[in-house]
Amino acid sequence: MPDTPRSSAPGLRADAARNRELLLTAAREAFAEHGLDVSMRQIAARASVSEPTLRRRFASKEDLVAEAFEDKIAQYADLALNALDQHDAGTALRQFLLQVMEMQLVDRGFADVLTTTFPPTMASEQHRRRSYQAVERLIAQAKDDGALRPDFVAEDLVMVLLAHAGVVAGGGHAAKAFSARLQVLLLQAIGLEPVGELPAAPSAGRVYHALMKLHDQMSTTSKPAR
Amino acid sequence: MPDTPRSSAPGLRADAARNRELLLTAAREAFAEHGLDVSMRQIAARASVSEPTLRRRFASKEDLVAEAFEDKIAQYADLALNALDQHDAGTALRQFLLQVMEMQLVDRGFADVLTTTFPPTMASEQHRRRSYQAVERLIAQAKDDGALRPDFVAEDLVMVLLAHAGVVAGGGHAAKAFSARLQVLLLQAIGLEPVGELPAAPSAGRVYHALMKLHDQMSTTSKPAR
Repeated sequence: MPDTPRSSAPGLRADAARNRELLLTAAREAFAEHGLDVSMRQIAARASVSEPTLRRRFASKEDLVAEAFEDKIAQYADLALNALDQHDAGTALRQFLLQVMEMQLVDRGFADVLTTTFPPTMASEQHRRRSYQAVERLIAQAKDDGALRPDFVAEDLVMVLLAHAGVVAGGGHAAKAFSARLQVLLLQAIGLEPVGELPAAPSAGRVYHALMKLHDQMSTTSKPAR
Repeated sequence: MPDTPRSSAPGLRADAARNRELLLTAAREAFAEHGLDVSMRQIAARASVSEPTLRRRFASKEDLVAEAFEDKIAQYADLALNALDQHDAGTALRQFLLQVMEMQLVDRGFADVLTTTFPPTMASEQHRRRSYQAVERLIAQAKDDGALRPDFVAEDLVMVLLAHAGVVAGGGHAAKAFSARLQVLLLQAIGLEPVGELPAAPSAGRVYHALMKLHDQMSTTSKPAR
């Protein structure tokens, strides 16, 4: 079978295109639940194909991730460009960050992809750069308006999204409550939001259970906790 | 071979104790580099044993993680208790948080363990609870002194450490620079540090290369980037 680098390539047979889409769907689901650390082997198993079959379509995990998230990264870039058209740069940047953190919250894979770069020739990287340039301008405008702390730079967007991804990845059932508090804290910290009270915190008991991350991974043959 | 749940159990032969220590060392190294997502299979391979051999010693990953990090969690609890003895609760809490984030920065596994709970009977969980009670008291004292925002609660320590772990896990070569900025932002946000300038940000070029996380994972047979 010839290599078919694009799902839209002319001449790609309909069943091959369908199979490719099934692989991408399996990959998107696995990434959304577990983040980008899922292995090619696990994705192949989820799609009920062998790993060599998966790798005939996507030679590397980087290829698979870039293509699985291409549409979402394009959406993200459009959000950034739309934010640039708003009248009030501070409010636009604030809304943009809240929207993006909401996208992180519902898709752990996308949360990681937002802080991942790709080789310059990939379409996903071109969307990412488009978004980056828009955010850079938005940040400059918000600073001009005095709506953002002056030492905040475009690279800090990555820091903010990495921090929020950490809460999404590790917070378990308390992730949503932690995310709501962290969003307010971070926006206040960078000057985008006036200092005010935080949303409700999760209870200690809820946090204890949410953070028992390794317990589900116990082998079925394991002895009871000592 | 009889099951030997404790490295200090009487009657455990010296070579068995040494083998157990070799497994724990391999696990600690793997966790430090890659975080807790490393599989039992990968740890067994690193220790040059079969996975069944590893599982004869540690029936579950939870057992292995709890034992591999028991000493570090005990150290962490001691740090929290020492902080309680200080005169100025705000300064003590600030120093404690900075020390703990430094421990996260050098060990990705420990960064994750700090936001992981274990069954109550495990020694690691008992250390964790000891630290939690100390931090709860420290937070109450710092609030009484007006050194901390009044809506900050003990559970927020988890949120702060999850956010910082996200930067450590995903920041690549820029993790240290992002961490330094996030530490200041978070401490200022919760009121522990007066608002002042942030440490230097990493450059855009450095961030681009640091975030090319998936590129190293490319298969050796992969085609060049399109």
